[in-house]
Amino acid sequence: MSVIPVYTPPDFSRPEMASAPPVRVEPAPSDGVLPRGFHATSNLPEYLHLGGGDWLLARESRMDAAMILLDREVKVIEPRLVKRGDPVVIGRSDDGEEGIYVHYDGFPSAVPAAADKFAFRTRGTRETPFSRSYDELYAVLRHDREQGHIVWVLGPAVAFDKDSRDAMQFVVEHGYCHALLAGNALATHDLEAARFRTGLGQDIYTQILQPHGHYNHLDIINEVRLRGSIPRTIQEMGLSDGIIPACERRGVPYVLAGSIRDDGPLPGVISDACLAQDAMRVHARQATTVIALATQLHTIAFGNMVPGYHVTAQDVVRPVFFYVVDMTEFSTDKLANRGSMQAVAILTNAQDFMVNLWNNLRRYG
Amino acid sequence: MSVIPVYTPPDFSRPEMASAPPVRVEPAPSDGVLPRGFHATSNLPEYLHLGGGDWLLARESRMDAAMILLDREVKVIEPRLVKRGDPVVIGRSDDGEEGIYVHYDGFPSAVPAAADKFAFRTRGTRETPFSRSYDELYAVLRHDREQGHIVWVLGPAVAFDKDSRDAMQFVVEHGYCHALLAGNALATHDLEAARFRTGLGQDIYTQILQPHGHYNHLDIINEVRLRGSIPRTIQEMGLSDGIIPACERRGVPYVLAGSIRDDGPLPGVISDACLAQDAMRVHARQATTVIALATQLHTIAFGNMVPGYHVTAQDVVRPVFFYVVDMTEFSTDKLANRGSMQAVAILTNAQDFMVNLWNNLRRYG
Amino acid sequence: MSVIPVYTPPDFSRPEMASAPPVRVEPAPSDGVLPRGFHATSNLPEYLHLGGGDWLLARESRMDAAMILLDREVKVIEPRLVKRGDPVVIGRSDDGEEGIYVHYDGFPSAVPAAADKFAFRTRGTRETPFSRSYDELYAVLRHDREQGHIVWVLGPAVAFDKDSRDAMQFVVEHGYCHALLAGNALATHDLEAARFRTGLGQDIYTQILQPHGHYNHLDIINEVRLRGSIPRTIQEMGLSDGIIPACERRGVPYVLAGSIRDDGPLPGVISDACLAQDAMRVHARQATTVIALATQLHTIAFGNMVPGYHVTAQDVVRPVFFYVVDMTEFSTDKLANRGSMQAVAILTNAQDFMVNLWNNLRRYG
Amino acid sequence: MSVIPVYTPPDFSRPEMASAPPVRVEPAPSDGVLPRGFHATSNLPEYLHLGGGDWLLARESRMDAAMILLDREVKVIEPRLVKRGDPVVIGRSDDGEEGIYVHYDGFPSAVPAAADKFAFRTRGTRETPFSRSYDELYAVLRHDREQGHIVWVLGPAVAFDKDSRDAMQFVVEHGYCHALLAGNALATHDLEAARFRTGLGQDIYTQILQPHGHYNHLDIINEVRLRGSIPRTIQEMGLSDGIIPACERRGVPYVLAGSIRDDGPLPGVISDACLAQDAMRVHARQATTVIALATQLHTIAFGNMVPGYHVTAQDVVRPVFFYVVDMTEFSTDKLANRGSMQAVAILTNAQDFMVNLWNNLRRYG
Repeated sequence: MSVIPVYTPPDFSRPEMASAPPVRVEPAPSDGVLPRGFHATSNLPEYLHLGGGDWLLARESRMDAAMILLDREVKVIEPRLVKRGDPVVIGRSDDGEEGIYVHYDGFPSAVPAAADKFAFRTRGTRETPFSRSYDELYAVLRHDREQGHIVWVLGPAVAFDKDSRDAMQFVVEHGYCHALLAGNALATHDLEAARFRTGLGQDIYTQILQPHGHYNHLDIINEVRLRGSIPRTIQEMGLSDGIIPACERRGVPYVLAGSIRDDGPLPGVISDACLAQDAMRVHARQATTVIALATQLHTIAFGNMVPGYHVTAQDVVRPVFFYVVDMTEFSTDKLANRGSMQAVAILTNAQDFMVNLWNNLRRYG
Repeated sequence: MSVIPVYTPPDFSRPEMASAPPVRVEPAPSDGVLPRGFHATSNLPEYLHLGGGDWLLARESRMDAAMILLDREVKVIEPRLVKRGDPVVIGRSDDGEEGIYVHYDGFPSAVPAAADKFAFRTRGTRETPFSRSYDELYAVLRHDREQGHIVWVLGPAVAFDKDSRDAMQFVVEHGYCHALLAGNALATHDLEAARFRTGLGQDIYTQILQPHGHYNHLDIINEVRLRGSIPRTIQEMGLSDGIIPACERRGVPYVLAGSIRDDGPLPGVISDACLAQDAMRVHARQATTVIALATQLHTIAFGNMVPGYHVTAQDVVRPVFFYVVDMTEFSTDKLANRGSMQAVAILTNAQDFMVNLWNNLRRYG
Repeated sequence: MSVIPVYTPPDFSRPEMASAPPVRVEPAPSDGVLPRGFHATSNLPEYLHLGGGDWLLARESRMDAAMILLDREVKVIEPRLVKRGDPVVIGRSDDGEEGIYVHYDGFPSAVPAAADKFAFRTRGTRETPFSRSYDELYAVLRHDREQGHIVWVLGPAVAFDKDSRDAMQFVVEHGYCHALLAGNALATHDLEAARFRTGLGQDIYTQILQPHGHYNHLDIINEVRLRGSIPRTIQEMGLSDGIIPACERRGVPYVLAGSIRDDGPLPGVISDACLAQDAMRVHARQATTVIALATQLHTIAFGNMVPGYHVTAQDVVRPVFFYVVDMTEFSTDKLANRGSMQAVAILTNAQDFMVNLWNNLRRYG
Repeated sequence: MSVIPVYTPPDFSRPEMASAPPVRVEPAPSDGVLPRGFHATSNLPEYLHLGGGDWLLARESRMDAAMILLDREVKVIEPRLVKRGDPVVIGRSDDGEEGIYVHYDGFPSAVPAAADKFAFRTRGTRETPFSRSYDELYAVLRHDREQGHIVWVLGPAVAFDKDSRDAMQFVVEHGYCHALLAGNALATHDLEAARFRTGLGQDIYTQILQPHGHYNHLDIINEVRLRGSIPRTIQEMGLSDGIIPACERRGVPYVLAGSIRDDGPLPGVISDACLAQDAMRVHARQATTVIALATQLHTIAFGNMVPGYHVTAQDVVRPVFFYVVDMTEFSTDKLANRGSMQAVAILTNAQDFMVNLWNNLRRYG
């Protein structure tokens, strides 16, 4: 149980909190437009003062969203989903002086900052030791398999290598994945591998480029389009190994978001970016742990949607763990530069990350 | 004129060509589905044998597309746009034996391969000397300003720095940009800079993080959504400097393709990936030079759409120059691994690339 | 003149300073060995309390060095250079309580930290706007050309490209370089280019790999070894263009430090790492501006040797500007992780950095 | 046994070989200087024609070295080691026409090139599937543990993380390492970890920066300098865990090459680059498998010293396997650009690479 840090709520009895005014709202001027001075959420726990010392925590928050205050409920929604007349929370301070309080230190810091003014190694890089990050992740996965909602965000590279693809299949089959978010490419190349054992024409084990291999992904896309859906294709063509087939067998939901880079796309891919965001947000609202690997676009997109905390059905506030796996400091800095400071970066190849996980989870069950 | 290499057509009188059969077609089984064995285009000049030694060059080709043969015309279209019954070209060989000939060496190689079996420096990296690539690019830009169609593909980083943003504005204002392709972020941060002189809240010159600066992009998006369009906002708010305002003044078309990472989005952004591809393809068909910088997603997307050659109104076949500017070998290798071998990589920061261009173009006119 | 920020010395009249004890020393137990509890310097201004409110600033400091206190002079030297019996300063606190005071804020911060608790873009990356960094560097170079000591630390890549090599030659010829630090490779490939116009066999302009080009660097090394020295080879072979010939003509000193990667090495290369460090330290003691590009090894090596401040002959304390130019966040983070927090990182290709400088310096004199 | 590919010698009975002249030599003009037109070795098997169809294979070759022909023996040595009057092989062709034959295809290609002219994924990147590379490496390590000479080339990062350091200790203790090549930093931080459980002051497991932690590496260096040697320090201070202590216990030789970046250095570090090269070359002559990780400098240095083949005591010619583990395509391209085309690149974090190996070797013995 100690896997999940305990939340310390703000002390609203402090004088400066006690004197805070009630929060203010203004109606949205039209659909998808906010009143000037709107408050935008961070991914931290935020409280609204309803007056008389009554502070309301926003559930299901996210970054850069609007708050709609309805009686005793606050809804955190994307600005484009605001309707004309919705009561939008106004104010940009975070310390209560406009009735809004952003709680920066509800959770203990995993790694305390340096005690010294002058210190080496204050920046996380590929040379940061990751043993502890892995061990914590293993523990979190075991905990959240039963008591959480684990969301995977995958780039296509995971399907390009036999071992990492097998490892991800294992993760799905053993309950460590409650939702999968990816793009057209991940699904395409996973099905390509199931049919041809290649990724973009290259054998996922031997590395050999198959003759006419650059047709493989086009052929599998065409097959799925012919048959009308991914599940039907899996069934009719008898595709059994890989990530998407495992999701289908286990009933794990997957969201495939379209992009301008897509061939096809496969039926089931959500071409409209706004609709895809809405489908992803459904999982952001439930997520307790997120593992995002080998995709800068999807990582930052989902990073913006996921709050740093989750309120359980029992009203317990717990952190949402966000692991980002990438090869470069640039990618993980970029996530941090968009506000997701809590994300734990593991700088490595997604293939090895998957194999590490697999080795641990299957050995220790 | 010598800026543009001369094209050498295939010699169809060679015996193996003379004996080639006519190309074969089959009707598409349904909308957006190809008959099995379909031919997929490369980005090279491809010829179809109509019989009797009559070979037809595909105009306006692209990578991974289907060929529809209509009488004496061949249309190269995305598989999803094929209609039931369309006569789709069949065959996967490239040497004429199925009536399809892919012309690999129509243009002289810019840099000849090593003569020796054992050689150093056979791979392009950040240490490759780029002086010549720049000089050729300057000459190409001057040529194609009048006699071509120059398409820029931009990541948001170009708008984050004062000098590079000024340089891109110069490029637009002086006729070196016939179309601009980008995403919601480029337009958002360019307008943010026009309004607040920041990019994601950071001053684009002083590097100072403005108080509440993370609101700036949300505020400008809200303003544009309130006013209904980018041009109207530019006019009403008197925004004058930057890339998008320059495009509006010059009448340079820009395509903003949506993605799941977008805030807003801005009115004018095409949220649907397929519609965005269609809008981008319009410029791919006309492009004679492409400069793609600081965006892996858009670069690979457009790289797939752009043929390696262009047929002018005067039926002259010329190369399409494709420059890709990125910080890592990985990004440019990735483009090559998807078939765009012709792309000229310049490994550097987009900021310096723009400033280099600016210095040259304004000095030598 | 405002190019150089003004230094604010510590206020030693503050009560906690006034009560500081005199600093303590212990004799070194043997040559090259320090007494336990030794004080190691940072690269910040450090003061030793001699008693009675008399504080002595260390001149010519560096990182991770020992302090030898001799009467009223403190010498900052590498531990290996300590002699048995030398009076070594003892103490590890930085606030005066052991008579040692490290002055963290003597210079105003160039870019103030974010005012907000929650902020975007707190980490420097390739997307940080660099226009201001360049402008400041131009001003610093003009100032320090006459009134400072500018040290360049170069990786071989600078000699691999025609324009960047020409630019560096310009820098040397126009007085913007008072000392050059590099390795065997930089000198080898610069002379290779002077003789063959190649770098490791590749033409530095056309990019063409010359037949048997991988012999070129071996041939030039052999010529220099035959003739006995670099200057003699330059003279006898009539080598005129490039970086090393320019240094010879201008009398700019250069230190070539050996490494295990070296072919040859060239006569003049200092094979012993300790002797090479000593030769580099001579320039570290005088440096007012350092520009380190495209070499992680030499950058970190010299970064450790250079203090963050310089005391002029007129006893003015001024900052030492340290610019590091590299393609990856990793390299610049690594420098920061070894204590050189003051370094200004410009993330770009060394080629473009040099060309930018060249364009500016020759245009505005 | 099939782990080791079979070598096919050249067919010297072919007409063009039969007509080859005997190889020519010229005396070296002075110590460390070659006669003009000298032949420089590649890392491939090279044969010298002694006349009459008698071809002599160079044993213990390396890149960029001179050949000294003594009666019926050819010595491959660094040019700086040549003595005045030594008979140096002359000639730069590789096809026998000067009596020198370079054998390009003695070993079967591990991964055949693409059969198609137009193919995707022709370049190796981080997205290349590495499962097979790992499996082959496991088999090679098991084979060469008894029947080969496995050389590890390590950057300091391996000692910065608890699991990777433990894994490397396991590798040494179980006979998978016959020699270790590294720098001062690897040994320093390994001993720092043995004493303080930190790397540059950061706990190798918890990631916590220890108070005054930036003294830790200086303190351990000082202890070793005080005691005079690494083995004595290990014994006297009772250091038991880690890489260097394991080497000492097992009697595994290690070469520590100095560099200008070194603190200290530790006693035992070879400060002179030429002497360090000589010590490394001893192991290059015996190596059958090399694993180089997380160090560009040492990897390229040793890559230049290691031939692509090894001749056993039983006169069997076998390949030398060279694995390079790094995070960036740039590092592995750089190795290839210096002629080491045979190196197998695995793009990942050294930490995960070590843990993968460890998991496999301890599970399957």
